[in-house]
Amino acid sequence: MSLNSSNNLTIALDVMGGDKGPLITIPAAILAINKQPNLHLILCGDSSVIQQALSEQGISAESIKNHSQLSIFHTSQVVTMDEKPAYAMRAKKDSSMRKALDLVHEGKAQACVSAGNTGALFSMAHFVLKTLPGVERPALISSLPSRDNDKHVFMLDLGANVFCESHVLYQFGVMGSVLAEQVDNIENPRIALLNMGEEAIKGSDHIKLAALELSENKAINYIGFIEGSDIFSNKADVIVCDGFVGNVALKTCEGVARLVYHKSKAIFTQNVVARILSFLLKPSFKKLFKTMNPDQYNGASLIGLRGIVVKSHGNANSTAFYAAILEAKKEVERQVPEKIKVMLEQGLTHQ
Amino acid sequence: MSLNSSNNLTIALDVMGGDKGPLITIPAAILAINKQPNLHLILCGDSSVIQQALSEQGISAESIKNHSQLSIFHTSQVVTMDEKPAYAMRAKKDSSMRKALDLVHEGKAQACVSAGNTGALFSMAHFVLKTLPGVERPALISSLPSRDNDKHVFMLDLGANVFCESHVLYQFGVMGSVLAEQVDNIENPRIALLNMGEEAIKGSDHIKLAALELSENKAINYIGFIEGSDIFSNKADVIVCDGFVGNVALKTCEGVARLVYHKSKAIFTQNVVARILSFLLKPSFKKLFKTMNPDQYNGASLIGLRGIVVKSHGNANSTAFYAAILEAKKEVERQVPEKIKVMLEQGLTHQ
Repeated sequence: MSLNSSNNLTIALDVMGGDKGPLITIPAAILAINKQPNLHLILCGDSSVIQQALSEQGISAESIKNHSQLSIFHTSQVVTMDEKPAYAMRAKKDSSMRKALDLVHEGKAQACVSAGNTGALFSMAHFVLKTLPGVERPALISSLPSRDNDKHVFMLDLGANVFCESHVLYQFGVMGSVLAEQVDNIENPRIALLNMGEEAIKGSDHIKLAALELSENKAINYIGFIEGSDIFSNKADVIVCDGFVGNVALKTCEGVARLVYHKSKAIFTQNVVARILSFLLKPSFKKLFKTMNPDQYNGASLIGLRGIVVKSHGNANSTAFYAAILEAKKEVERQVPEKIKVMLEQGLTHQ
Repeated sequence: MSLNSSNNLTIALDVMGGDKGPLITIPAAILAINKQPNLHLILCGDSSVIQQALSEQGISAESIKNHSQLSIFHTSQVVTMDEKPAYAMRAKKDSSMRKALDLVHEGKAQACVSAGNTGALFSMAHFVLKTLPGVERPALISSLPSRDNDKHVFMLDLGANVFCESHVLYQFGVMGSVLAEQVDNIENPRIALLNMGEEAIKGSDHIKLAALELSENKAINYIGFIEGSDIFSNKADVIVCDGFVGNVALKTCEGVARLVYHKSKAIFTQNVVARILSFLLKPSFKKLFKTMNPDQYNGASLIGLRGIVVKSHGNANSTAFYAAILEAKKEVERQVPEKIKVMLEQGLTHQ
C-alpha cells in the first residue's frame, strides 16, 4: 500500500460495505478520481477482490502501485449488513469499515465513506473518532426534497439515537445549522423542531426545553415548531428531532412514495390509452419518485464526531455512492467538524 | 327538543364544530337520515343557526318539531378551532361539543360525532365519559390506505398522548385489535408495533416491554415490529405507536402526498402534449392523492372511553362527515367499548 501524503484531499472508502460492495463502490471511486483531479482515495477491503474489480474497470494491478489518486489498504474482514453493532465492534477490528475509520482517526484520511451496516458504522465511528468537545451525541443527518425545486431540507437525527434529551436536541440544531450553512451555502439557516403541533404548548417537556435553549442562542435562527405535514414546504432549512421520530418520518416518506408509485402504476395501465400515455410521462414520474427516497441517492452524514463520516445507502448505486464521496469532500473543504466545535462554544458563551 | 327514545340508534352531532360548521354538518346529517332509516340524530348547537341551515335543505322549523329522525339540542357556546383544551373545558360547558358528549354520558345518545378542535374534544371526552375500567389512556385511531385496494390499516395513537409507557402501548394493541375485528371484520387482526427497525434489539426499552406484553396475550395476534416504510404494505392490520410518533407519521404522509401532488402538477403542465394528456389521467391521480390524506375523509375514533366518540377532520366535507357518522353507527352496533373491556379483562387473566 502506498498512502499518498501530498496536499491532495484524501478519503478512505469502505469498499466492501453495502449490498453490492465493490461492484458499486469501485466504479464510483473511478468516477470520483476522474472528475476530481485533487482527490485521493484509499480503497479499504480485500486487496484481491479490489484488484479484480479495478482490472474490470481497466486499471491493472501494476498501474495501481504507483497510482497518483488511488491506493489499496488490505483488510481481511467484512462487516455484514445484518451484523449486530456490538459484535462488529468486538470481532471485526480488521474490517474494511473499521480500517477506513482508523485511517481518519490517524490523520491518514480526512473523511470516510461507507455504504455498510448503519448501526455498526455508527457505533464504530463513535468509538474510534469520539465526539467533538461538548457534543453529547453524534447524529445522522441527510437532506430531503423540498416543494421548491432548487431547495432541500436537512433533517436530524435520522436514527442514530433512540431518544434525545433537550440539550442533545439543542446541539443537533447547532450542528444542523453549521452543516446547512457550510455545505449548502444557506445564510442564517432556519432551524425548526419537529413537533405534533405548531403551538408552543404542544409536545413533551424536553421539546419545549430544547425550543427555549435554541431560541436563547442568538447565533441560531430558530423559527419554532414544525409539523410533519410541513417537512417539505420550505418553511425550514433544518428540522430537528430524536432518532426514533426521524427514522419513522424518513421511512414513512419511503412508504408513501412506494404506495403512490404502486398505485400510479395501476393508473398508467388502466386502459390502452393510459398505457400509451404512460410512455410519455413515466420518465418524469420515475424521477419524481426517486427524489422521494432521499436516503437512496444522497449520503447521510454522521455529525458531531472528530472526523467526517458519510453513510451511503445500503442499496446505493454507483452514482449515489459517488454523491456520498462528493459530500464527504465538501465537508472536508468546509471544515464542518471544526465549525461545529466553534459554534457550540459560542453558544455556551451566549447563554 | 324531543329526544327520540325508541329502539332507534341515536347519535349526537356537534353541529357547530369544524371549519365550516353547519354548512357541512347539516347536509351530512340529512344525507345520513335519508340513507339510514333507523338512525336518529340529535343536532347540538345554536338552534336558530341549525333551523336556518335545515330550512335551506328543505326541512322547515315546523316539521323538525315532530321529526322522527332529527331533533335539536340548543347550546349557547361554540368551542373554536384554536382554543386551548384547558380553556374549553373550563369556559365552554354549554358548547355544542360538550353537550354532545354529555348526551352520550347521560345515555341519551349512543355516540357522538364532532369535526371540532381535536385537543378540546379529547380532553372533554376523557373528562365527561371517563376511560373503560383498566384503560390507562384513550387513543385516537384511524384507518390509512393500503397497497392492496380492498384493505387498509388502523393506526393508533395519532396524537392524543405525547408519550406512552409500555403498558399503555399494550392496551392500544388490544383496543386496535378489537376495532379492526369489529368494524372491519378482520379475523385475528395482525398487530404490530411501529419501531425504527424490525429486529428485536431495536428501539427503546418501553417498546421492547410492550412487545413482550403483547406477545404474552394469546388472544392477540402480535406479529412484531414494523418500520415506517411498511405502514402501507399490508403487513399488519393494526399499527401501534405513541401519539407523538403517530402524529408525525400521519402528518408526514400528508406532507409527502402534498409534495407529490405539487411536483406531479409540474409534470402534467411541462409541455402542451402533457397538458392535453393530463385531462385523461388527472381524475385518477386526484383520487389517489385524496386517499393519501386519510384523516380528511375518514373519521378517527377516540377509543378506550366509556362511550363512542368519532372525530371528523376539521376541514371535512359533507361526505367525510357522513362517513364519520357511519363509523360511529358501526361502533355502536358492534358494541366496541364493551368488547374492548372484555378483551382487556381476558388479557389480564391470560398474563
